[in-house]
Amino acid sequence: MIVPRYNLWLEQDGKVVLSGWRVRLLQAVASTGSITAAAEAVDVPYRRAWEKLKEMEKRLGLSLLETEVGGAGGGGARLTAEAEELVARFLEFSNGFEAEVETRFERAFDGIRAG
Amino acid sequence: MIVPRYNLWLEQDGKVVLSGWRVRLLQAVASTGSITAAAEAVDVPYRRAWEKLKEMEKRLGLSLLETEVGGAGGGGARLTAEAEELVARFLEFSNGFEAEVETRFERAFDGIRAG
Repeated sequence: MIVPRYNLWLEQDGKVVLSGWRVRLLQAVASTGSITAAAEAVDVPYRRAWEKLKEMEKRLGLSLLETEVGGAGGGGARLTAEAEELVARFLEFSNGFEAEVETRFERAFDGIRAG
Repeated sequence: MIVPRYNLWLEQDGKVVLSGWRVRLLQAVASTGSITAAAEAVDVPYRRAWEKLKEMEKRLGLSLLETEVGGAGGGGARLTAEAEELVARFLEFSNGFEAEVETRFERAFDGIRAG
């Protein structure tokens, strides 16, 4: 069976600054309260999650995380207001896209799935 | 400046069978009449173009090219009717997508380009 696939992302100076995956990572930080737990939630090593977050901050020129070091819970992280706004805007940008792609596919490749 | 980007492709059994790039390669074969010239037109080595065309044929279970070996012009290639139909369907699938992505971006990230 042939299925349509897509990817959506944002670039600045030719470099990725936001994507579905990056937004899921930010959302995981928001919902878990730590980079460690967020990395686990999106199934990447801590180091990769940390690097991607730092890379986004550098490329965007924004602070995305407020972090606490140490403490009983081993520190934590939460999104800045700017990061929350970017997440919300990206979700608005991408919302309904899958359905749009599916509709276009059904129209253009009508019947080909059966082939 | 932040810009939206996207990619659209089709998969069968989890493998890419058609994409914007692959369709441009097929279109280049159609317009140049040879795999060699098509590879040059889409700026990849001949071997890579040939492998991608064979891969698509194998994954789709279709003949995409009619080739002539040898002759004064060193042989040539043209698209089969099935390949022409796939190209046309993919163009219908993807037509207007860039504008759709841009509109969604403008709506969701209103004013952020200035930032």
